Amino acid sequence: MVQINENYLKLKNRYLFSQIGEKTKSYQKSHPDKNIIRFGIGDATLPLTPAVISAFHKAVDEMSVVSTFKGYGPEQGYEFLRELISKHEFEKRGVNIFSDEVFISDGAKCDTGNILDLFGKNIIGITDPAYPVYVDTNVMAGNTGNLQENDQYEGLIYLQATEENGFCPEPPDRHVDIIYLCSPNNPTGVALSKTQLSAWVTYALNHHSIILFDAAYERYIQNQDIPHSIYEIPQAKKVAIEFRSFSKTAGFTGTRCAFTVIPKELTGRDSSGNETSIWNLWNRRHSTKFNGVSYTVQRAAAAIYTPEGSKEVNELIKYYRYNTELIKSVLKKKGFSFWGGIDSPYIWVKVPQQITSWEFFDYILNNLQIVVTPGIGFGKSGEGFFRITSFGQHEDTMEAIKRIENWEWSF
Amino acid sequence: MVQINENYLKLKNRYLFSQIGEKTKSYQKSHPDKNIIRFGIGDATLPLTPAVISAFHKAVDEMSVVSTFKGYGPEQGYEFLRELISKHEFEKRGVNIFSDEVFISDGAKCDTGNILDLFGKNIIGITDPAYPVYVDTNVMAGNTGNLQENDQYEGLIYLQATEENGFCPEPPDRHVDIIYLCSPNNPTGVALSKTQLSAWVTYALNHHSIILFDAAYERYIQNQDIPHSIYEIPQAKKVAIEFRSFSKTAGFTGTRCAFTVIPKELTGRDSSGNETSIWNLWNRRHSTKFNGVSYTVQRAAAAIYTPEGSKEVNELIKYYRYNTELIKSVLKKKGFSFWGGIDSPYIWVKVPQQITSWEFFDYILNNLQIVVTPGIGFGKSGEGFFRITSFGQHEDTMEAIKRIENWEWSF
Repeated sequence: MVQINENYLKLKNRYLFSQIGEKTKSYQKSHPDKNIIRFGIGDATLPLTPAVISAFHKAVDEMSVVSTFKGYGPEQGYEFLRELISKHEFEKRGVNIFSDEVFISDGAKCDTGNILDLFGKNIIGITDPAYPVYVDTNVMAGNTGNLQENDQYEGLIYLQATEENGFCPEPPDRHVDIIYLCSPNNPTGVALSKTQLSAWVTYALNHHSIILFDAAYERYIQNQDIPHSIYEIPQAKKVAIEFRSFSKTAGFTGTRCAFTVIPKELTGRDSSGNETSIWNLWNRRHSTKFNGVSYTVQRAAAAIYTPEGSKEVNELIKYYRYNTELIKSVLKKKGFSFWGGIDSPYIWVKVPQQITSWEFFDYILNNLQIVVTPGIGFGKSGEGFFRITSFGQHEDTMEAIKRIENWEWSF
Repeated sequence: MVQINENYLKLKNRYLFSQIGEKTKSYQKSHPDKNIIRFGIGDATLPLTPAVISAFHKAVDEMSVVSTFKGYGPEQGYEFLRELISKHEFEKRGVNIFSDEVFISDGAKCDTGNILDLFGKNIIGITDPAYPVYVDTNVMAGNTGNLQENDQYEGLIYLQATEENGFCPEPPDRHVDIIYLCSPNNPTGVALSKTQLSAWVTYALNHHSIILFDAAYERYIQNQDIPHSIYEIPQAKKVAIEFRSFSKTAGFTGTRCAFTVIPKELTGRDSSGNETSIWNLWNRRHSTKFNGVSYTVQRAAAAIYTPEGSKEVNELIKYYRYNTELIKSVLKKKGFSFWGGIDSPYIWVKVPQQITSWEFFDYILNNLQIVVTPGIGFGKSGEGFFRITSFGQHEDTMEAIKRIENWEWSF
């Protein structure tokens, strides 16, 4: 009989967002008349912008004619998109990322998982709370032991993001090989300053570590002191991989396009100590286990770098940001403590002391018909908090705010 | 320093199709006036059909309006597409595959690679020659030893497809846990009959093995005795995973949509011998390391199941099939021995004895400006053969045929 990958059996039974989805669905089923407002999963609700739609249609038309039809594209992505990214996302911020260091993919979620294919046995450090995919994919890859009683996996180094450290853990005293950082952070909404991020780069340089830097929310940064890319920190190209996405930037959650930067300078070592290019490994993986993103989608993504596209994306961000402000004001009014929501579409809110974050989830779903994300779903240090996203429609957000405002909160 | 996955270092330096691409590019560069005809990579050249284009545009339009905009979809694919597949690809052939056993993905290439995530240490059997991704992804996953002097990997069981067995290897005398079968075969173009495939299913039932059945080319089957799906064989749901694709069916090579069938009956075991559902593992993988295929692309794919879409796809297949017939007739005329090209868009041709398949590749590129695929690129048993694809435009195919016909073949 075929031997399965037993690491999968170590996984907690449910993926967080599936669990939220099912609870919501079940509530809706038994309360068909209730209007549920979803602040749970961070999913775009505004449509693709006109420039994107127009480029998308044009590309579909190209696919309808022999002379412009596109079959297999380069697995790494079309040069037109890689060059635009190199220029607009990096060169304009004074960062030198070559177009062949940019790999187009169908999602940052996929890439943050798939990247582990390249690595062997290492000590893994993950901030806690964190996007669940980081932990789960390490479990699947066999980089952890079993789930312990404290609900953490043996062998993983959890870097606690707490109220005390402003949800920005410092580099640890001990050695870690691979470090997951997400800034602006999902779920806490807090972003790392240049000084804070520099400390991590210095740590990685000293320890020959690699930082997996998830910057999917960089478009929401307002503060001048917050780096949009880890490569704004000197020498970061020697120690960091960066994950970016069009999902939260331009509403591509259902359209699927993202990119990952693997600098040519980045190396790991084999067991004999020989330095090996990580770029070579990822390029090999990408061309063997992937076949590129749909040509039409890449053309649609490229449109955000036109003057109109860029303007439209800014409007879109502004729209969500206005939601954030509205939500923050009602939270303040009702006496909730919260963080984030400045350089991020996420607000991290403290749960009233008497209950757990899942209890709060049920409470607010049952009483106010609002879906939030329980902090514990992001890790042990997430207990006592919940996450609210600003990705709703204005009308829904206003309605939710009204419900929050008018509710007599008691536990 | 970070420990890399050393298995990557065992890989041969180049992925076959990249190598062909580079050789072709380099020839074109030094001969800019030459018109190269590509029979190398099996890439569609006909545009997407009108029904697909129309559905694609409609879906793009949906993405432009709040009320119909789609964010994150189900990771496993939209129910509308899964149901159509269940009905048209299986129910119509008397096969019972539930829609939730169908997982939509962005490519059969990705899925045949990613599926290995689910398995532990097993004995792997791969037909030789074979689509290079099967071997390479096993090397990456650590399922092999080193590349040996005979150009095969230690620890892999190679199931030789030779002229003697009609390129259809029988089940081996020894035990194998996981078996890769591709029918109609890439590269040989030969398809397994019901009797031949039944022998494999019986073997897998007896050995508790799992067959990874790649049926990406099933639409090209003409012979009534050739199964389109392995599930046409009784009890195959207990032992087989099937990979399908819209790439060669409807020209989706650059549009990206495929699906994989994981029956609920399929199980493996953990090291204590407990049976475990493979469906559960794949569902977990798909929802953790993947975020679904673009909504627009799924809508485009669904259009091939409309009456017009279906008719158009048949026309498209007919067009390529006509190419196959033309190519076969000139090969016959010039005295080449060949196989395939009946239930498949591929023709497997014997190289003249004096030279290797790469030498033949160079010979025909330099003299006739035609790109073929050297058999050795598909494995050791591929030496002495080359693959021709029928995916060209008629005009190009005619031109290539003229060149082949008029050339004085000598080595």
